[in-house]
Amino acid sequence: MHTRSFRFEPLSPEDTEIRTLGLASVESPLQLERYIDEDDSIFVEVYRDARYCARDGEGAAQPVVFEHAGPREKLFFDPSKTKCAVVTCGGLCPGLNNVIRSIVLEAHHFYGVPAVFGVRYGLAGFIPEHGYNFEELTPRSVGDIHEFGGTMLGSSRGPQSPEEIVDALERMNIGILFMIGGDGTMRAASKVQQEIADRDARIAVVGVPKTIDNDISFVAKTFGFDTAVQKATEAIRCAHTEALGGPNGIGVVKLMGRNAGFIAAEACLALRDVNFVLVPEEPFDLHGSGGLLDALEKRLADRGHAVIVVAEGAGQDMFKDIHGTDASGNVRLGDIGSMLCAEIKKYFQERETEITLKYIDPSYIIRSVPANSADGIYCGFLGAHSVHAAMSGRTGMVVSKWNGRFVHIPFSLITRGKKSINTRSNYWRAVLEATGQPLSLRCSE
Amino acid sequence: MHTRSFRFEPLSPEDTEIRTLGLASVESPLQLERYIDEDDSIFVEVYRDARYCARDGEGAAQPVVFEHAGPREKLFFDPSKTKCAVVTCGGLCPGLNNVIRSIVLEAHHFYGVPAVFGVRYGLAGFIPEHGYNFEELTPRSVGDIHEFGGTMLGSSRGPQSPEEIVDALERMNIGILFMIGGDGTMRAASKVQQEIADRDARIAVVGVPKTIDNDISFVAKTFGFDTAVQKATEAIRCAHTEALGGPNGIGVVKLMGRNAGFIAAEACLALRDVNFVLVPEEPFDLHGSGGLLDALEKRLADRGHAVIVVAEGAGQDMFKDIHGTDASGNVRLGDIGSMLCAEIKKYFQERETEITLKYIDPSYIIRSVPANSADGIYCGFLGAHSVHAAMSGRTGMVVSKWNGRFVHIPFSLITRGKKSINTRSNYWRAVLEATGQPLSLRCSE
Amino acid sequence: MHTRSFRFEPLSPEDTEIRTLGLASVESPLQLERYIDEDDSIFVEVYRDARYCARDGEGAAQPVVFEHAGPREKLFFDPSKTKCAVVTCGGLCPGLNNVIRSIVLEAHHFYGVPAVFGVRYGLAGFIPEHGYNFEELTPRSVGDIHEFGGTMLGSSRGPQSPEEIVDALERMNIGILFMIGGDGTMRAASKVQQEIADRDARIAVVGVPKTIDNDISFVAKTFGFDTAVQKATEAIRCAHTEALGGPNGIGVVKLMGRNAGFIAAEACLALRDVNFVLVPEEPFDLHGSGGLLDALEKRLADRGHAVIVVAEGAGQDMFKDIHGTDASGNVRLGDIGSMLCAEIKKYFQERETEITLKYIDPSYIIRSVPANSADGIYCGFLGAHSVHAAMSGRTGMVVSKWNGRFVHIPFSLITRGKKSINTRSNYWRAVLEATGQPLSLRCSE
Amino acid sequence: MHTRSFRFEPLSPEDTEIRTLGLASVESPLQLERYIDEDDSIFVEVYRDARYCARDGEGAAQPVVFEHAGPREKLFFDPSKTKCAVVTCGGLCPGLNNVIRSIVLEAHHFYGVPAVFGVRYGLAGFIPEHGYNFEELTPRSVGDIHEFGGTMLGSSRGPQSPEEIVDALERMNIGILFMIGGDGTMRAASKVQQEIADRDARIAVVGVPKTIDNDISFVAKTFGFDTAVQKATEAIRCAHTEALGGPNGIGVVKLMGRNAGFIAAEACLALRDVNFVLVPEEPFDLHGSGGLLDALEKRLADRGHAVIVVAEGAGQDMFKDIHGTDASGNVRLGDIGSMLCAEIKKYFQERETEITLKYIDPSYIIRSVPANSADGIYCGFLGAHSVHAAMSGRTGMVVSKWNGRFVHIPFSLITRGKKSINTRSNYWRAVLEATGQPLSLRCSE
Repeated sequence: MHTRSFRFEPLSPEDTEIRTLGLASVESPLQLERYIDEDDSIFVEVYRDARYCARDGEGAAQPVVFEHAGPREKLFFDPSKTKCAVVTCGGLCPGLNNVIRSIVLEAHHFYGVPAVFGVRYGLAGFIPEHGYNFEELTPRSVGDIHEFGGTMLGSSRGPQSPEEIVDALERMNIGILFMIGGDGTMRAASKVQQEIADRDARIAVVGVPKTIDNDISFVAKTFGFDTAVQKATEAIRCAHTEALGGPNGIGVVKLMGRNAGFIAAEACLALRDVNFVLVPEEPFDLHGSGGLLDALEKRLADRGHAVIVVAEGAGQDMFKDIHGTDASGNVRLGDIGSMLCAEIKKYFQERETEITLKYIDPSYIIRSVPANSADGIYCGFLGAHSVHAAMSGRTGMVVSKWNGRFVHIPFSLITRGKKSINTRSNYWRAVLEATGQPLSLRCSE
Repeated sequence: MHTRSFRFEPLSPEDTEIRTLGLASVESPLQLERYIDEDDSIFVEVYRDARYCARDGEGAAQPVVFEHAGPREKLFFDPSKTKCAVVTCGGLCPGLNNVIRSIVLEAHHFYGVPAVFGVRYGLAGFIPEHGYNFEELTPRSVGDIHEFGGTMLGSSRGPQSPEEIVDALERMNIGILFMIGGDGTMRAASKVQQEIADRDARIAVVGVPKTIDNDISFVAKTFGFDTAVQKATEAIRCAHTEALGGPNGIGVVKLMGRNAGFIAAEACLALRDVNFVLVPEEPFDLHGSGGLLDALEKRLADRGHAVIVVAEGAGQDMFKDIHGTDASGNVRLGDIGSMLCAEIKKYFQERETEITLKYIDPSYIIRSVPANSADGIYCGFLGAHSVHAAMSGRTGMVVSKWNGRFVHIPFSLITRGKKSINTRSNYWRAVLEATGQPLSLRCSE
Repeated sequence: MHTRSFRFEPLSPEDTEIRTLGLASVESPLQLERYIDEDDSIFVEVYRDARYCARDGEGAAQPVVFEHAGPREKLFFDPSKTKCAVVTCGGLCPGLNNVIRSIVLEAHHFYGVPAVFGVRYGLAGFIPEHGYNFEELTPRSVGDIHEFGGTMLGSSRGPQSPEEIVDALERMNIGILFMIGGDGTMRAASKVQQEIADRDARIAVVGVPKTIDNDISFVAKTFGFDTAVQKATEAIRCAHTEALGGPNGIGVVKLMGRNAGFIAAEACLALRDVNFVLVPEEPFDLHGSGGLLDALEKRLADRGHAVIVVAEGAGQDMFKDIHGTDASGNVRLGDIGSMLCAEIKKYFQERETEITLKYIDPSYIIRSVPANSADGIYCGFLGAHSVHAAMSGRTGMVVSKWNGRFVHIPFSLITRGKKSINTRSNYWRAVLEATGQPLSLRCSE
Repeated sequence: MHTRSFRFEPLSPEDTEIRTLGLASVESPLQLERYIDEDDSIFVEVYRDARYCARDGEGAAQPVVFEHAGPREKLFFDPSKTKCAVVTCGGLCPGLNNVIRSIVLEAHHFYGVPAVFGVRYGLAGFIPEHGYNFEELTPRSVGDIHEFGGTMLGSSRGPQSPEEIVDALERMNIGILFMIGGDGTMRAASKVQQEIADRDARIAVVGVPKTIDNDISFVAKTFGFDTAVQKATEAIRCAHTEALGGPNGIGVVKLMGRNAGFIAAEACLALRDVNFVLVPEEPFDLHGSGGLLDALEKRLADRGHAVIVVAEGAGQDMFKDIHGTDASGNVRLGDIGSMLCAEIKKYFQERETEITLKYIDPSYIIRSVPANSADGIYCGFLGAHSVHAAMSGRTGMVVSKWNGRFVHIPFSLITRGKKSINTRSNYWRAVLEATGQPLSLRCSE
């Protein structure tokens, strides 16, 4: 039995089917020697004994596949008459500008579209009462944006009326809408696509999944994640330096990760100077034998310093009160970083052990930076493949990378549930090896 | 039909078989909840219509798979009595120290081996006449090495007598030899493993493939490559700045890549400020209509500046004389960078067009730096999986990453031929799109 | 009348006199062509009309000078018999390891001392009950330490008994003590030097002033400050990106600076993306016409986003309660960053203006990093000049850089008072120009 | 007697006098509380015994001073009617964009000028036949340029007719010309200023000295130099890593520095991993006892690896043939880097000593990058002070930093001769200490 670093339920072939707006009958202007075939596809599973995720009527195993992304020979849209729009939603992420730029360059230079519009400040940019105008995006206006973090379009959280969004698209005569955002955005995109279908409109909606936490299902690694991990390691390196600076030095670093501790885990693997990593997927106790404070005390006695990395969503069971939700509907988290620091201080004060505790919360520093080169390359492909998919008439889907290939995944599947670390996997074991912490920080009493 | 970014011949199941030294009957000290099963394996192909690379006796298609890497429950070696040795060969690469460190930490902390020895200066370190002593590597002595580029062990090129190497291994009573190096090193490793087999000795030889050029077959991306691309983009950014600095400014950057232009290609995808990329896989003409100089002239007339990235192995057909070979048996290349600069200057001088040409050859700067965080993570797994494989008695194989999973690949397959860019693939098309250069720079006359 | 960026009282020649342990009669082993003369000195003031800071008996103006640092021909100590010790105190700062390394290399390679000892964890390292052993520092053991932030020796805050410290020095037969620390450390050093004088011991005490806040008098720029500013700009760049990300985006960055806002001010000058800078030297009002919130509202109405940089010591008059002091006797500050954020949110909530506020507190990230090259060079000279000064028998003094030259300054002067920004200077005007904020944020009502 | 790191002849008060276009009678719009007085000035010398560089008629010593830079209360130009132009000349340098940006922002935001024009591609941009249009520079158009290396205006080498330049200025009704360039540019600026004087035109010419080599007299450190040194250390770190990689590893790094080895010297001080530094100011022998090759052989025998840093202008006496001059009239240098490598290889081949030599020439990589924060701050002040000076009617001068203060220096003084390292200074001694190389590499035979 396989233990992937994250879990998902077995899929049926229908789960991965992609919708189209209609018959693709327009010749592609790309003039390629070879195009992606309409039925090119990629196995969902690469493990030999796991490849048959579904069975047909007679019980014969059927491999489940994702459609292969890439340029198609026949298009649904006539590119020369198809206006596009791009919108970025939710929190910032390294590479947003790269995706925007790639969409604009692909659409302009290779498909020759008449216009690509940028929607300001997320879905709010569609709503007339906010008074934001669409901004025309040209190869020149997006030329240098990849050198900057953030999104040149601005962003915002929270949903808006699908009707008003489709009204705006129709008013502006837009044929393709590219939506870059998290799973909330993809759910919103799904509603927009449904509204379009209800109106029988000829508008494609194609998404590019974005999350700094890397917690979107069926996306092996979200864009910007690599850059964020690299920045996170810089903060951890500082915490390590601070921990070494004092007798019984303790460095605590809080990293992003509401429901999934991937950033924390990867940063530990990258740097290997972390002694305890705390993630939402693995509950822990503070007190009692075998709890964090006990283990920390042992570590200090043994080595004289310690570095703790905590994902923001870790240990939330310890916050009894309810913190409410933000504009995107996300639960407001208790501040585990500050709580940890307070508890550690109290614990050692009670034991009259002098410690030096330094707390580092890099917060937005890890996500507001420009994409590194690996993310830059990745974003370039995501943008280009989004354009290819949309031009062929595909809709209600995102571009993702899976088993090393770019594929199409329907909104319905991408929003089915969030990805998180499988703490029974070899991946998590490797993280624990990297930290040297006990397999469990649950109190044994 | 699929066009991957690189090509390989169809494989038979025998091609991917891994040798072992004998029965694995020792209990692993890792005490894991679950281990990798002995027959866990990963598809070589993930494209649905390409998955059957072989046929059994009755003609039924058989998927070809690679063995899955990871900790095994039963070991061949008794870890508490097994001494290990590590050697690094060939040119430097970001991450060498990370792999060394990972091997040492895994072997010491988790398997509890009595000693890991570092062999100085490549295979030469085995040969008594050089007088290099083995250096004992401890968790403490490798603690910070990942913060530095290069290899703490030193390296050298060229083969050494397999007999003398095995003599040294037996003299030091070493059970496992880890060899980190390129395809030349893997061929040497193969001979060492053969010599061991001939002597019926109980020594495992496990490799970690290393090449800054990313040109080893069946390794999706070699360690350090990501870091090298990132550094390469910095040089290109400078060339772009210089090109913008002068009227008719031309920036030329030479990058590593003897037989494969992956670094050049990826850097173009990452930065998208390059106008011409020249790689070994795609011959080009300098002169004549449609040749590079002609296209460059058009670009300057159109935009006033240009950036050219050239892999060191590009355009070698233009060097008529033979340049001999180096210690590793590699052909000495003609200096395409300097030649290009001279030809460009001459061409525009003849046309009385004033240009400003700046040539940048970052050379070793892209490979002597510490690994970035992505490579750091990657190297950590490569080292750990090498130890797992060797402890289980596997030999004559390397650890590689394929379709996103770590796998075992026999020396015989890894050395079968080099990987290079498939210039008929969508990957290469994307590179050309990123540069905007013509599909071909062959003279049309 | 001149308005320097910081103020100091007129000096008398006695203020700058340096003590010595006795006659320097030992030949320097440096074998230089030329040495610094015993009376070489540097003007304290370089403004023509300010150069006479003192008057002699007859009323004739006398320029006040600092002794010039550098190698002397005649030494007090016989280097071949003089053991040295180095201690680092207080908070971390980029370059600590560089100074340690420079002292060790200069003392070993050029003066040929028998030993340099490192004292662990600040002044506590002298106190037997803590049980920290001195660590012998060799050129080899300090070889790579400059590649790491922090201090290899560890540090701690707070004073220790001068008697016990001198006891330890005598017990170990140490001739020279190098103390790297802030003004608190220099006051402690002064007491140690007094205790030595009382005992008539032949031990020199030479300091290297350290403060991340750059608030030590008569040190133009403390080591590590340059690096810290560079790191601070990275945090501000992120805040700027975040501010641009949302409609009415506000980025707030808290930077170090308890009593002096130099880091905040310099970072604003470096990046010029900051719209409001708040420093301890310039009180401001939150509420009322002309206060910060009013100005912020205008800025948002005008430009749609804003970046605020606040030094941790700014606006402390707004914290009514007393926060106590830490181990070094520093007043505990109110958390101005969090308070600002809360007030801003409340203000706009009351006005029903939607804002997006992102708070970044890089905290130790700006000080735990390795020194950049400029600081590396600076620290190299500080260390070497400390050794030169001590070998010549000078004591009770620090090495500083003033008017571009390295000089000797007595403890008594260096601890006379802290440096802070002169908000009536052209320097501060330039900072305000860089932000574009009003000259005053005091409420005009 | 003092030995500064570079030498200059004693000055007379006339040498430092600044010209003006006429009476300054316009009120400054800056509305400052206090302005720089017209006679504020800074000592040229800060050494007590060197301060009297001139004697008046009666033989009384007169200190020589530089005029203090800063905003003046009375202006010559009416800012609201004064158009400005900026031109950048010669090779790129980090910070060019920062200076341009600072001039534009100061002139627009604080003086309220009607327009600032950017001249394209250096002095060639004034010459009608080239057909380059002036580009209007606004706060918006220069907003982000400091994030990029190079110059947004482009640049070129070589002089142009002063008459044509002044014709262009008069044609465009420009009152102030800011010229950013090296000493060649300042000589050209001097001729332009003379032509203006001959025509009795009311145009101010103010320079900002630029040179990556830091070899301009009376500029303590040129802008961009700090950044270049930082980048140079990265290349040296790689060479060090490569040298450690092989048995008898030798890393050779060539750095910019035609007539002055400041970049090489500072990089050695910053990193301290260099074993031999070769600069134009200090001739050396390759062969013979005590020559470089002899010393290198000893170093290898002793330590097994070596790093050599060579300034491009070093050892030029070894090139017998004449190499001609470039467009700026600079002598074409022999390629000392390649020559060194060839000689080293030959030397050890003859001795049958196997070596591994790696040559790194970072070339433009060290100068095409964006300014670091210290240079960013510096450039901000240079730009602002240039505007202050010009508005007050000063002309024929540059803004420089001297003894830590910004001052005005006439073209005539700044172009009097180039700065180079004084190899008899304590500065050079410190560099040699940092490398550990012998005081001289002249052959002793």
